[in-house]
Amino acid sequence: MRIDVLTLFPEMFESPLAYSILKRAQEQNIVEIVLSNIRDFTTDSYRKVDDKPYGGGPGMVMMCGPVFDCFEHVQQQSDAPAHTVLLTPQGQPLTQDKAIELSQKPRLVMIAGRYEGFDERIRTGLGAEQISVGDYVLSGGELAAMVLIDAVVRLLPGALGDEDSAADDSFSNGLLEYPQYTRPEMYRDMKVPDILLSGDHGKIEQWRNEQQLERTKQWRPDVYEKYQQSRLPQENNQK
Amino acid sequence: MRIDVLTLFPEMFESPLAYSILKRAQEQNIVEIVLSNIRDFTTDSYRKVDDKPYGGGPGMVMMCGPVFDCFEHVQQQSDAPAHTVLLTPQGQPLTQDKAIELSQKPRLVMIAGRYEGFDERIRTGLGAEQISVGDYVLSGGELAAMVLIDAVVRLLPGALGDEDSAADDSFSNGLLEYPQYTRPEMYRDMKVPDILLSGDHGKIEQWRNEQQLERTKQWRPDVYEKYQQSRLPQENNQK
Repeated sequence: MRIDVLTLFPEMFESPLAYSILKRAQEQNIVEIVLSNIRDFTTDSYRKVDDKPYGGGPGMVMMCGPVFDCFEHVQQQSDAPAHTVLLTPQGQPLTQDKAIELSQKPRLVMIAGRYEGFDERIRTGLGAEQISVGDYVLSGGELAAMVLIDAVVRLLPGALGDEDSAADDSFSNGLLEYPQYTRPEMYRDMKVPDILLSGDHGKIEQWRNEQQLERTKQWRPDVYEKYQQSRLPQENNQK
Repeated sequence: MRIDVLTLFPEMFESPLAYSILKRAQEQNIVEIVLSNIRDFTTDSYRKVDDKPYGGGPGMVMMCGPVFDCFEHVQQQSDAPAHTVLLTPQGQPLTQDKAIELSQKPRLVMIAGRYEGFDERIRTGLGAEQISVGDYVLSGGELAAMVLIDAVVRLLPGALGDEDSAADDSFSNGLLEYPQYTRPEMYRDMKVPDILLSGDHGKIEQWRNEQQLERTKQWRPDVYEKYQQSRLPQENNQK
């Protein structure tokens, strides 16, 4: 997969891309991540990328020109069809299903904005999918792009080491993960549940499943409701 | 505000903390961000921080010992009462309201995990609030911690420059932001809406409000529904 990121702060990406899974995935050519600086595509001597909003109001808005020119330059650098993503709090919330869907594209182009937002014509003109990493506001789209890169790249075949697994992830079966314990059996006054030490794999699986249902119901009733709804048609089909 | 981050990859934070608002807020002593490496609190010669899960299954689980010891070391470094946050996909979803709430604490301690997860006793033993930045899975809690730091720090008094504003953020009034436009009036064949060029501030405000309602209803019916419910009691009170 090739991932292009259009940003005003390519340097911000340095350290998060240089460690752990993202580092390994790049070294093993599982993913190529190319950062382009939108400011390199300005045409005036001030290298201006933003301006005041029409109609008034606080803050600065990212201008069309440099983003369109940067986008078109990047588009030409690969023949793979690009899926374009605009990181913005107005987008559809990123979910694990969306990360899986995006991990199957040959190429992603991500556009990270700063300031109050993008000129609306960037969204409509580039045909980009708007994605939000959550219902909160960040200083810019850079961290959101890093989050999306990480969520997608770890799903690419070979990106996770042998000892890791995406199959047991939270949300991978529509529920939160079950509680995990590791050595020692007793830490201070806290003991590992007896069932996990029993060696009875059937019972352990059942306990873990109950825990998943229980904590999802308690902590994330919205996720639990979706889980139940997703099971209804299957159960009806079995009848 | 003081923010402590407990992580296995303190180097990952370098570049995101060195630019823009997070850089400025640290330089101006609005926030002090202290990174502690959990691995420095291992006691064995292998500097082991993780082990296999009891009961079997893939992946590795972060052990209690180094996290508890690191946490207790960090706790002693400041008298300010600490609010502890565990970054995990099982947590409550981060919202703008939660970011505002956390921005009012004198001190935050964030714990970023890697691997399949934390030993459950870390959560229960440290009395930490579990926060998730979204319903997707990341390689670790580091990017989640960076997102939380950014969302919180930009809300601290003085963190945003004069020209910026948190008041017009998406979600700040419970709705998505209105569309923004800046110069030029005509870019390629795309024109700025006439209303924004009219100079009629009353009409512009009305248009922007309609746009906020419209796009929230269309793109995020869940957010729109919450917005309407939050208005109901107010309207009743006015009667």
